[in-house]
Amino acid sequence: MLAPKVGIWFVGAWGGVATTATVGLLALQKGLSGTSGLVTERPEFANLKLIDWQQLVVGGHDIRETTYWASAQELWEKSRVFSPPLLEAIKSDLALFDQNVRQGSLKNAGKTITSLASQPTVEQSAPETAIEAIQRLSADMIEFKARHQLQSVLVVNVASTEPPIDASLRDLSLGQLEAGLAKNSLALPPSCLYAIAAIQAGFAHINFTPSVGTDIPSITEMAERARVLHTGRDGKTGETLMKSVLAPMFAARNLMVQSWVGHNIFGNMDGKVLDDPVNKSNKVRSKDHLLQEILGYKPQTLVSIEYIESMGDWKTAWDHIHFEGFLGTKMMLQFTWQGCDSLLAAPLVLDLVRLVERESRRGKFGLATFLASFFKSPMGSDQPEFAKQFWQLQQWVNDVREG
Amino acid sequence: MLAPKVGIWFVGAWGGVATTATVGLLALQKGLSGTSGLVTERPEFANLKLIDWQQLVVGGHDIRETTYWASAQELWEKSRVFSPPLLEAIKSDLALFDQNVRQGSLKNAGKTITSLASQPTVEQSAPETAIEAIQRLSADMIEFKARHQLQSVLVVNVASTEPPIDASLRDLSLGQLEAGLAKNSLALPPSCLYAIAAIQAGFAHINFTPSVGTDIPSITEMAERARVLHTGRDGKTGETLMKSVLAPMFAARNLMVQSWVGHNIFGNMDGKVLDDPVNKSNKVRSKDHLLQEILGYKPQTLVSIEYIESMGDWKTAWDHIHFEGFLGTKMMLQFTWQGCDSLLAAPLVLDLVRLVERESRRGKFGLATFLASFFKSPMGSDQPEFAKQFWQLQQWVNDVREG
Amino acid sequence: MLAPKVGIWFVGAWGGVATTATVGLLALQKGLSGTSGLVTERPEFANLKLIDWQQLVVGGHDIRETTYWASAQELWEKSRVFSPPLLEAIKSDLALFDQNVRQGSLKNAGKTITSLASQPTVEQSAPETAIEAIQRLSADMIEFKARHQLQSVLVVNVASTEPPIDASLRDLSLGQLEAGLAKNSLALPPSCLYAIAAIQAGFAHINFTPSVGTDIPSITEMAERARVLHTGRDGKTGETLMKSVLAPMFAARNLMVQSWVGHNIFGNMDGKVLDDPVNKSNKVRSKDHLLQEILGYKPQTLVSIEYIESMGDWKTAWDHIHFEGFLGTKMMLQFTWQGCDSLLAAPLVLDLVRLVERESRRGKFGLATFLASFFKSPMGSDQPEFAKQFWQLQQWVNDVREG
Amino acid sequence: MLAPKVGIWFVGAWGGVATTATVGLLALQKGLSGTSGLVTERPEFANLKLIDWQQLVVGGHDIRETTYWASAQELWEKSRVFSPPLLEAIKSDLALFDQNVRQGSLKNAGKTITSLASQPTVEQSAPETAIEAIQRLSADMIEFKARHQLQSVLVVNVASTEPPIDASLRDLSLGQLEAGLAKNSLALPPSCLYAIAAIQAGFAHINFTPSVGTDIPSITEMAERARVLHTGRDGKTGETLMKSVLAPMFAARNLMVQSWVGHNIFGNMDGKVLDDPVNKSNKVRSKDHLLQEILGYKPQTLVSIEYIESMGDWKTAWDHIHFEGFLGTKMMLQFTWQGCDSLLAAPLVLDLVRLVERESRRGKFGLATFLASFFKSPMGSDQPEFAKQFWQLQQWVNDVREG
Repeated sequence: MLAPKVGIWFVGAWGGVATTATVGLLALQKGLSGTSGLVTERPEFANLKLIDWQQLVVGGHDIRETTYWASAQELWEKSRVFSPPLLEAIKSDLALFDQNVRQGSLKNAGKTITSLASQPTVEQSAPETAIEAIQRLSADMIEFKARHQLQSVLVVNVASTEPPIDASLRDLSLGQLEAGLAKNSLALPPSCLYAIAAIQAGFAHINFTPSVGTDIPSITEMAERARVLHTGRDGKTGETLMKSVLAPMFAARNLMVQSWVGHNIFGNMDGKVLDDPVNKSNKVRSKDHLLQEILGYKPQTLVSIEYIESMGDWKTAWDHIHFEGFLGTKMMLQFTWQGCDSLLAAPLVLDLVRLVERESRRGKFGLATFLASFFKSPMGSDQPEFAKQFWQLQQWVNDVREG
Repeated sequence: MLAPKVGIWFVGAWGGVATTATVGLLALQKGLSGTSGLVTERPEFANLKLIDWQQLVVGGHDIRETTYWASAQELWEKSRVFSPPLLEAIKSDLALFDQNVRQGSLKNAGKTITSLASQPTVEQSAPETAIEAIQRLSADMIEFKARHQLQSVLVVNVASTEPPIDASLRDLSLGQLEAGLAKNSLALPPSCLYAIAAIQAGFAHINFTPSVGTDIPSITEMAERARVLHTGRDGKTGETLMKSVLAPMFAARNLMVQSWVGHNIFGNMDGKVLDDPVNKSNKVRSKDHLLQEILGYKPQTLVSIEYIESMGDWKTAWDHIHFEGFLGTKMMLQFTWQGCDSLLAAPLVLDLVRLVERESRRGKFGLATFLASFFKSPMGSDQPEFAKQFWQLQQWVNDVREG
Repeated sequence: MLAPKVGIWFVGAWGGVATTATVGLLALQKGLSGTSGLVTERPEFANLKLIDWQQLVVGGHDIRETTYWASAQELWEKSRVFSPPLLEAIKSDLALFDQNVRQGSLKNAGKTITSLASQPTVEQSAPETAIEAIQRLSADMIEFKARHQLQSVLVVNVASTEPPIDASLRDLSLGQLEAGLAKNSLALPPSCLYAIAAIQAGFAHINFTPSVGTDIPSITEMAERARVLHTGRDGKTGETLMKSVLAPMFAARNLMVQSWVGHNIFGNMDGKVLDDPVNKSNKVRSKDHLLQEILGYKPQTLVSIEYIESMGDWKTAWDHIHFEGFLGTKMMLQFTWQGCDSLLAAPLVLDLVRLVERESRRGKFGLATFLASFFKSPMGSDQPEFAKQFWQLQQWVNDVREG
Repeated sequence: MLAPKVGIWFVGAWGGVATTATVGLLALQKGLSGTSGLVTERPEFANLKLIDWQQLVVGGHDIRETTYWASAQELWEKSRVFSPPLLEAIKSDLALFDQNVRQGSLKNAGKTITSLASQPTVEQSAPETAIEAIQRLSADMIEFKARHQLQSVLVVNVASTEPPIDASLRDLSLGQLEAGLAKNSLALPPSCLYAIAAIQAGFAHINFTPSVGTDIPSITEMAERARVLHTGRDGKTGETLMKSVLAPMFAARNLMVQSWVGHNIFGNMDGKVLDDPVNKSNKVRSKDHLLQEILGYKPQTLVSIEYIESMGDWKTAWDHIHFEGFLGTKMMLQFTWQGCDSLLAAPLVLDLVRLVERESRRGKFGLATFLASFFKSPMGSDQPEFAKQFWQLQQWVNDVREG
């Protein structure tokens, strides 16, 4: 008997992260790649009955019109990631997945994201209310499930970072949210519309971006009510991962951090979007808050994110940490992290799909908090230290194994 | 009623670490310094009835003839650590502690360490057998306790790194050790002689160096029999601390470390001793083993330690970590750690004194394993990850508080 | 017969650079310091009849009320530069120089600089026109020369960076400038007022700051007419020095620079003033223009300057240079420069005083262009490469020796 | 009329540098690559009548049996240099050049290089005297010229670094050299045999390696006598280039360099050969001498070169420069240079071929000293500063243009 198929529905389907995850998934399915970077390929995950890579099918929404092949080629050309022979070997599979991509929504996306969209969009030819957009997005997801006879679908947001939302949206009750939607009077950004669409379709939702997604009380409540599992937000791939690892060391040794300066340069589309200060503010906040949480006091911090075109998908983070040791002696730790953004993010996305799918399969719903180690701003968790977050994941492994 | 006094007996009393610990202790006693860098000044240690800084008195052994004032001045002049006004304020106290320093032993110390000794030594005027040396060293410690009416004494080895010992010494039973000592037929290095002297005096022993100290089965058994607490070895102050913090991150994320290169440059006396390849081998081994333990496989590693005179007491470690991410993509983390060696080590020494003293006071003896987070090569522990080592320390805190 | 005395008149007399130059000058006069960092102490300058350190006397203008001792103590406390014993040895000499400091001008200084001033100022009690300010400043300089029976005075601007001036000021003829001054209708910043005051007093002017000083045509013409020597601007002490050294290498090897990112963090008063984006723009421009001049094309560049309090007077520049080698291969050079700003600037200031004094003494006036190697934006020079700038200085040495 | 063909004869024909130069040459011939990294493509070289890329044909000697395609594939696979489509486009041309490669010599090559050779070698089946080896090598070169109807051939040594030669070889007169060769009594390493073979064939010789080549008086005299142009040695591609650029800056500013530590890690075959300390000593010497020459005093220096397999052809150099500024203040410059060795070397090799060919064509012979900027240890030059070396090259450009 064939194992049942499971769908991944990417929001931002042809973007760098989704493209890389899709290329990687196909490479895994064809035995063309090792498993470096995949947390769920560590030994302790071996007997958890996680879905096999072979079971996964890819689809999604995007606001740009392109193909997986074109996106992958661009990553290769600008950033020398992937190997051209690998891409050749999966070319036809990529084309099949292209057929599962539908047009996304730009409602309240802000001008920088909107400027990236291919023209004309569904929305421009026939403007939608928020409810109409949700219904369209939800229908796309459900049709994907039906067409491929999928056992389940997981919606994963890997789209560009949106501007911050109006603070008042956080204060809405679920009733107020639904009323506002009915009246088309709320400035909900696309990440919320996709999240609601997933919930209404009954599909788990993973928010890998700094955008809000399910992270307002009314949507969280909606997921709970619909018995849908969700988690997020903002994948922790590089500099912030380092912060969540290093800051506990300074705390444990009572070395007082006086300043922590982090400069990030990179040249992919994410970088272009973050060059808009409005969008950037969402990201910087997500990278900056954990120092105070870990250290218990607030050192001077600086986080800059700059678009440097020549970097392509490679990100270099330079961090300078000034700390005070015994007798007031000032010392320094500096690091440079030279990683390829999409290649760091993609395996975590695949891991999250496997873990959330498994958790759903054992009947859990609502906010999945055992995944804090994957996120910069883990919803439902107040544990900012990476080692402890990872220990929570290992506890879950034990739970599943025993359960 | 006055709190009872407790003695710290430094092996290597006038060296950089002991001098800095002594300067720092006096600064703490006089309220002239903050508590940065002292683990036992973190909030959770507040109600453990640790000894107060005021209770501590310093003495020790050294093989060079100098003074605390001269050693501290040299640190200031070469490395710009301490503040001249602070040194002025504690000048007379340093001189009092000088009176507690006795001549150490050079038996089997190797030629590099021997070349550092002031002439003539006790041993040169009247050569000692190993047992005579132990008895002399032990008598010095006991006399210190008596003269200052100390409640207890803790012996802390902070002397220069010795050459590795002959492997056969590890195979000796306690009986064979004692017989060999009686026949004066064993090539025991000074760190073992000091350790045995401490045990025979009934004093706890802390080995902050890479030298062997109590870390052979026969001496460990001797400590057990004498109901003496001991711990070690090799204080974890910089690059290795970073390794024990960063390697678990790579493991947790299944990022395969392909090579880890570490270059260390520094210019203090420790550096001069380590310029002798024989002495260096002991240190390099201590810095290198943990990667394989944490990662579960052996990446190519390189650890170099070089004496660069201009650095003074400042150590710069440059580490280059090459790791493989998803789809075989090679990425890099580099860090530079610019710390002042003695200033990093000294507070940990003071912490260890407080913690071992507390543990002794509640009747514990033998090997203290809850202190693994302080050491590069923690005796009695197979836990190489810093976060978990620190969690063990926090468990001990809970034990003591509840006990 | 005693050598004649020569005066240095610092604009920003009690600031970090002037204080350090003054401390250093006194250390040189008393034989308490070596000559590292002083270009004019290189062997080829030996027989040029440069003035001796003993001949120099210090005075100046400042807008804050303090003392050399207090400024020097602050540098020591925050940044661990100087040695307390050195400061003790020159304490009384510093106090004598304090008596030569007069109140500066805040006319059109911008709000950030104005906020640093001690209250109340001359100008606040009796508002001055621009001409009145110039006359007062000039009178202070002349009185200094008379009181100390100085052979000559050199005015050196080492004050905080001003906001950029209105572009129209560059278009003024000398006649228009003088007419505008007469009508008090020009928004000339203080650096221009000091420069005019120096010129009117007949004193050479050295502009070590990014502020405009003599760098507009009308003031340059005024200096020419008054037969006064002047030079500038913006001392080249760190990151820009590196750029002027490294960029020619990339050009010579035809390695195409794709991006050059420079992040500068530091914590002195200069940093605080540059935290105001208006003031910062002047500095960034001065640091950024030379790449295109040297390379012949414009790579993407980014220069950030950030105030990080814990750094004190230490500046860390991190530069990331992405360049394309053969067959389009991207490679990287990164550097970190960890220097102490005032200590890098001060010896160059003393060098410039010596060199400009010597040049004046052989009857030269107008713009001194042989000093381009000292400046980020050398007036009258279109040579941005350091090696060639330095060769120009060596040509001057030959000229003077032969002349 | 077709332009005449010119041959490049690589010693180490299938090694990384020669393979890269050959791939690059074909890319240039087919218009598939830009000219980044090629000095002779700077504008001032435009009208010098340098040979065109189209005119060049490749052949050479190697001790291993492989192909250009295999070598290029290995560089791609290990180091991600080249683009697979580019390699496909030149595949058949590479195969044609393979036909011009002949078996090299291992006489006195030392055991590390010998261990790299494919078996069996000519020499092993029929041992050669030195003269026989020279004659065979020379005949191969001449046959290449004849077969391709080349106007001239330039012999370029890009083989692995040999162990240092016996110092007595430097004292030989030309007569003694020839007598020793006749008696087969000299331990001349292969680099000398190739050089003599080239000279006897009347072909110019370029030594891009640290091996001795023509750099002993007797061989230099032999080249002079044969009216053959030669130059060398040790291409200056990375860390040493940086030293020759940065050290003059410290000297010009009178900043006293106290220590200069350089650690180099890389993983290509050159690295494997240099892992043999005997071979490494030749390289380290070449990298280390220039600091004293430039600075005029000898700071403490350390140069390490380590083989780290994961690096492939990428070299990372980390340099830590400790320098003393004004008032004895210690400051630091650190840099990391991340370059791809073969890609840095190959364009310089092509440049040298063009420049030496041009110089030969205008009738020059003997030691070409205008090429010092290309070498770590420029023969016949005592100018260690890069800017001045480059100025010499520009003078030559003027000479050629005017001549």
